[in-house]
Amino acid sequence: MTKAHEVVAAYWAAAEARDWAAFSALLVDDVVYRGPQTREQVRGREAYIRFNTEGFDYDWHVTVVRIIGEGQHAVSWTDFAGREGTQPGLCFFELDNDGRIATITDFWPDPYELPASRAHLVERY
Amino acid sequence: MTKAHEVVAAYWAAAEARDWAAFSALLVDDVVYRGPQTREQVRGREAYIRFNTEGFDYDWHVTVVRIIGEGQHAVSWTDFAGREGTQPGLCFFELDNDGRIATITDFWPDPYELPASRAHLVERY
Repeated sequence: MTKAHEVVAAYWAAAEARDWAAFSALLVDDVVYRGPQTREQVRGREAYIRFNTEGFDYDWHVTVVRIIGEGQHAVSWTDFAGREGTQPGLCFFELDNDGRIATITDFWPDPYELPASRAHLVERY
Repeated sequence: MTKAHEVVAAYWAAAEARDWAAFSALLVDDVVYRGPQTREQVRGREAYIRFNTEGFDYDWHVTVVRIIGEGQHAVSWTDFAGREGTQPGLCFFELDNDGRIATITDFWPDPYELPASRAHLVERY
């Protein structure tokens, strides 16, 4: 397991445990979080902890499906169970030279209708 | 660069070049493609080539943003420029023991409205 893989595993374990001290210790001071789908951004460790605690103030649970790490990059594919059922979350991480998380780019793909143009080329599961 | 990283780089290079022979050679015979958002599935190399050629029969271009590989797993984050502008595509790959692609899980995260519940905790970019 790469270092980046381990860091991201620790990140999700801390989040699931609501251990914000351990979570915080994995981040650089000026960590940057981005959600490209809404073009939202959070800068700095304190603001990011507040985002995670105040922004999601309901019962939620996160389960890791897969983590892949290479060099200073990693990705996680998780299942996030919250108010609206369970949905996949895909999160890209960049680490600094000390192995702390410097940037997080977070994607939440929602269900959509199968386009008619390729319906004859696929089956459903 | 890991082997899995190289295979996925070759996969996107072949797709962008419409070199379906090279693309095909990277896949196992019984490759399985899944799109969890529509619950669509394609099984087998021939069906998957047809899906890529007939299912997307317009001008499109794909640019790799990032590839991460570890062991027999890899992920790609690409920008896909097609009929509806450019959108990110996130694709998880599993390789068999010979380094050929056995499964592909493809996500297309669309833009959505920022939830009011966390609007005070973020900035926009």
